[in-house]
Amino acid sequence: MGRTSDAGEKILAAGRSLFEARGYSALGVAEICKAAGVPKGSFYYFYASKEALALAVVDEHWADQRREWTRILSGVGKDGGDAGGAQPLDRLRKLFEETEAGQHAVQQGCGTVLGCLFGNLSLEMSNQTEAVRARLQEIFDAQVEMVAAVIGEARERGDVTVNDSREAARSVVAQLEGQVMFAKLYNNTGRLSPLWGNCLALLGARAA
Amino acid sequence: MGRTSDAGEKILAAGRSLFEARGYSALGVAEICKAAGVPKGSFYYFYASKEALALAVVDEHWADQRREWTRILSGVGKDGGDAGGAQPLDRLRKLFEETEAGQHAVQQGCGTVLGCLFGNLSLEMSNQTEAVRARLQEIFDAQVEMVAAVIGEARERGDVTVNDSREAARSVVAQLEGQVMFAKLYNNTGRLSPLWGNCLALLGARAA
Repeated sequence: MGRTSDAGEKILAAGRSLFEARGYSALGVAEICKAAGVPKGSFYYFYASKEALALAVVDEHWADQRREWTRILSGVGKDGGDAGGAQPLDRLRKLFEETEAGQHAVQQGCGTVLGCLFGNLSLEMSNQTEAVRARLQEIFDAQVEMVAAVIGEARERGDVTVNDSREAARSVVAQLEGQVMFAKLYNNTGRLSPLWGNCLALLGARAA
Repeated sequence: MGRTSDAGEKILAAGRSLFEARGYSALGVAEICKAAGVPKGSFYYFYASKEALALAVVDEHWADQRREWTRILSGVGKDGGDAGGAQPLDRLRKLFEETEAGQHAVQQGCGTVLGCLFGNLSLEMSNQTEAVRARLQEIFDAQVEMVAAVIGEARERGDVTVNDSREAARSVVAQLEGQVMFAKLYNNTGRLSPLWGNCLALLGARAA
């Protein structure tokens, strides 16, 4: 990954790091520019508003996360090779394992579990700005579709007993967000360990 | 319920309404005092800081909610009479039904689903102030204990198959928080309707 070389990229990187750690409302443009090491005057050259920066941060974060989810749910390992998880439920399990590992890595790095940027902003901001609300809805809709597709595969194989893949996917993603909330509140990624068992239960998995 | 009659109570009521609707960081003391209809100078006579007010708001909200949860989970109806739900799982179902009805009533009143104050503040603030984090942990611990006690009763009757009532209660409360998040994001209390079926699945209920 190359170094950010211009002010716009530095502002985006600082915004991403600060919004993830401290939310939206607690931050001002001046503080973001200070963290980015750019003069405050340059902010509005790149972003019309703090909200516009938040949308850009959300888009970049989702582009990264969607790439990861796509990789995991299609059974590709981190090294690009086959992860040995060709079966749908194995791929879904991998999603939770990598989520837990990701939250743990962040905690190791900065001392605290930061949770899910999209969940954080959903609860802080969805009543405040319709643009952010709409973007976050699109992202969670897309997450649900990705999970629903894998559940659909598992249904075809007879591995799970749920009737409605999309409805089941919503419940699985909600369980994920709820447990991530508690991992953050208790600063304990161990809170994520029941995720897989709960997912099997929610899906009515044969193996459960 | 009597009218608030002094400045301290007015500040508490305004804080509760504003924190619930807009979170913590977006608000300033001046705005809270304006909404309360009291001079800004009087704020610090009652509260040492905005954080102190937030803790008082959280405490009052939890006192109300704990009273409700206690009533529901002990099988008492809103009118104080027997709710006709003597069985443990019936009481747990009632908790979700009344949660959904409560969110719906708020939405009817103010036009938008406000979600769970404790969940909102957990994601916005738990990394920001240790005092609020500790208080929210205590509240969710207490919620889990209340739900675990009912699950324990259901286990004794053989109604559910989970082995660990507390672990199961954590997953049930996490599912509740996750679905409430989506009810808020999509401004749609219909998102809460899968809660009971999901709870039965998470508990390995015989009826599921």
